[in-house]
This record gives sequence, structure tokens and C-alpha cells, in this order.
Amino acid sequence: MSSAPSVGRPRSGARRLPTGTARDEILDAAAELFAERGYAATSTRMIAEMVGVRQASLYYHFKTKEQILAELLESTVRPSLEYAAELSGQGLGPAEALHALVVYDVGVLLGARWNVGILYALPEIATEPFARFRAEREQLRLAYRRLVAADRPGTSEVTGDLVFGLVESVIGMRRDLPSLPPRAELQSSVAAAALRLAGLG
Amino acid sequence: MSSAPSVGRPRSGARRLPTGTARDEILDAAAELFAERGYAATSTRMIAEMVGVRQASLYYHFKTKEQILAELLESTVRPSLEYAAELSGQGLGPAEALHALVVYDVGVLLGARWNVGILYALPEIATEPFARFRAEREQLRLAYRRLVAADRPGTSEVTGDLVFGLVESVIGMRRDLPSLPPRAELQSSVAAAALRLAGLG
Repeated sequence: MSSAPSVGRPRSGARRLPTGTARDEILDAAAELFAERGYAATSTRMIAEMVGVRQASLYYHFKTKEQILAELLESTVRPSLEYAAELSGQGLGPAEALHALVVYDVGVLLGARWNVGILYALPEIATEPFARFRAEREQLRLAYRRLVAADRPGTSEVTGDLVFGLVESVIGMRRDLPSLPPRAELQSSVAAAALRLAGLG
Repeated sequence: MSSAPSVGRPRSGARRLPTGTARDEILDAAAELFAERGYAATSTRMIAEMVGVRQASLYYHFKTKEQILAELLESTVRPSLEYAAELSGQGLGPAEALHALVVYDVGVLLGARWNVGILYALPEIATEPFARFRAEREQLRLAYRRLVAADRPGTSEVTGDLVFGLVESVIGMRRDLPSLPPRAELQSSVAAAALRLAGLG
């Protein structure tokens, strides 16, 4: 219990995260509840209780439940989007760049403590608080389309969309399968599959 | 208004489906509400009101909201599962059979009036009323694994799972993209992509 939260009474339970701030712990508890119980069935009171803070403390960090979900969803796409931007300056060939992005993106989706990507399908995502998440996810889709199409004018946009869908299918695998291959192995398998799909294999 | 529902008062609104029974219209209204508003936010009363029948009539056909969702979800996998069984007796080569199943399955997912597949991610799906849906979807996954692995002992199960994920990614495309290519074109694109992914191209 080295770093107490800046707001609210000391929490009664054990720390959820070894080095997390109160804000990180709220996000982590919300991710667990949203993914396991469902978004509609989770209240900010439940999240506060799980972390062991008062609701007022939670509101200090997040004004609404939507804001928590938006931040969690953005964390599933923003790192890969930033990585795609980095890659584009490195002068890699299309196959090499696509492989690197898929490995990274699958790592992000599998590496999060909770499988937040399953919440992409919530009808709420179409509303205003999720506009930034939607825009960032579309940018990531465009990055895939560009990499897949690179130097091959005949390539259809659909192929890029299918590679994007293939990468996100690890969210469903993580939800549905009793066990997954080791993460590095699955990252390689999906990247190799993406190259074959794109005709860059 | 040729076929009145067998139970309940005559509906006030226009028919939802030109040739539907009351049961079909309940399923159709529920699919629209679940997909557009969300499952948790939809009550059986709303479904009955949308169809224009009393709740008692709805309960005559479906005992619970879960039962309606289960039937809708099963309708997204059972036709493809039955088609996979038919295919297996036709002596097709692995590439031909995989191509046919993908075309059929994508047709089922895109052809339904509402994009019910987005509900696969609901946490409720892990509960008992959805055991049959889960079992049928797993059987369909196994059909893909078998077709992808056919006659090639070295092929990993993961490749079959990725083809399955690729096919289901049309659910996300239908949800996220402002417009899709014509259905037949998308069926062909996904089938060709699946063959390349599987190394059967």
C-alpha cells in the first residue's frame, strides 16, 4: 500500500494493481466488471466498491461511466495507432511493416488484463462520448488498408478491412477458447496469416 | 394482413414482415431492438409493443427474453452448420469445400435483416439458456478447423480458428462501415481471402 489514492478514504481491500494509481485501479475494476458482468449491468457504485473508494472519489477522476468505458476502449487502439505512425517513417517494405503492426496490435489486444475489445459491439459506442474512440479505430483501419494496398494499386480496400478483422478476431478467440497458444506464438501466427491473406506472404 | 397472429389481439401497426407468423414478427422485432438499443435495455414489453401484441401473446411463444435471444443467435450458426454437414458428403476437395462454406456462411451473416452476430459478445451468452448456441457455434468452428486442416497434418488448429474469425469479421464490417460491397462480391472476397489465409489459394 505504498501510494494511497489522492482522494477518498483509504481502501479496505487489497491493492488490485501492484503499482497502480487510484485512477488506474478504477479503470482496472471497471474493465473487469464491464467485461465479466456487462456494461449495462455495472454501476459506478459497483466500480467504486470494488476499488474500495467512495463514489465521490471516482467522480473526481471520471465524470461518467461512459468516460471510463471510452478511456478503456481507446487504450485498445491508441498504442497500435501510434505504432503504425512510427512504422511509417522507418522505410520498411510493405510485408515487413504489416507483419510488425499485426504482431504489435495482437500483443495489445492479448496483453490487456481484461478483454475490453468485446465491448466494441455495445450499441452505446455509436453515441457522442465514444466519438474519439470510433475515430481512432477508423484511423487504425485506414493504416491497415494503406499497408495492405502499398504499391499495389489493384488491391481492394476490402482486403485491408479483412486483415483488420482478422487481427481483431483474437478478441473473440480470447473470449471463446478455453486456452490460447502462448502470446508470442499467436502473434506470429496471426501476422503470418495476415501476410498470406494480403498476398504479401 | 393475410395471416393474423394465432394469439392476442389484432396488431395496430403495419406488418413487419410480408409473410411472417406472429412468432417470426416477435423474433424480428426483438432482433431489431437487441441490435439497435442493446439486449439489457430491451424488455419483453417493448418487443410486444413493437409487434403490436399483448405480452401474454409473446409469452405464449417465448417463455423468457433469453429464449428469444437464444433462438436468434442459433439462427446465425445453424444453417451454416447444416450446410457444412451436407458438404462433407459431396466428395469436394478441401479448397472447394472451404470456399463453398465461407460463401454460404458469409451469406447467412450478411443476409439476416438485423446484425444479430454483434450480440455474440454479451456476457449473458456464457449462461445456461445459451448452451445450445455455444455448442453449435463450437461445432461450426470445428468444421472450419477440419476443412482447413484437411489432408495436411502439419496445419495448426489456430489457422482454422483464424478462418472462422475472418468469416465472423463481416459482422463487425456490417456494424462499422457506412456501406459494404454488394453481398455476392463480399462473399467471394472473403472466400478467396480464407483460401489464401489457409494456404489453399
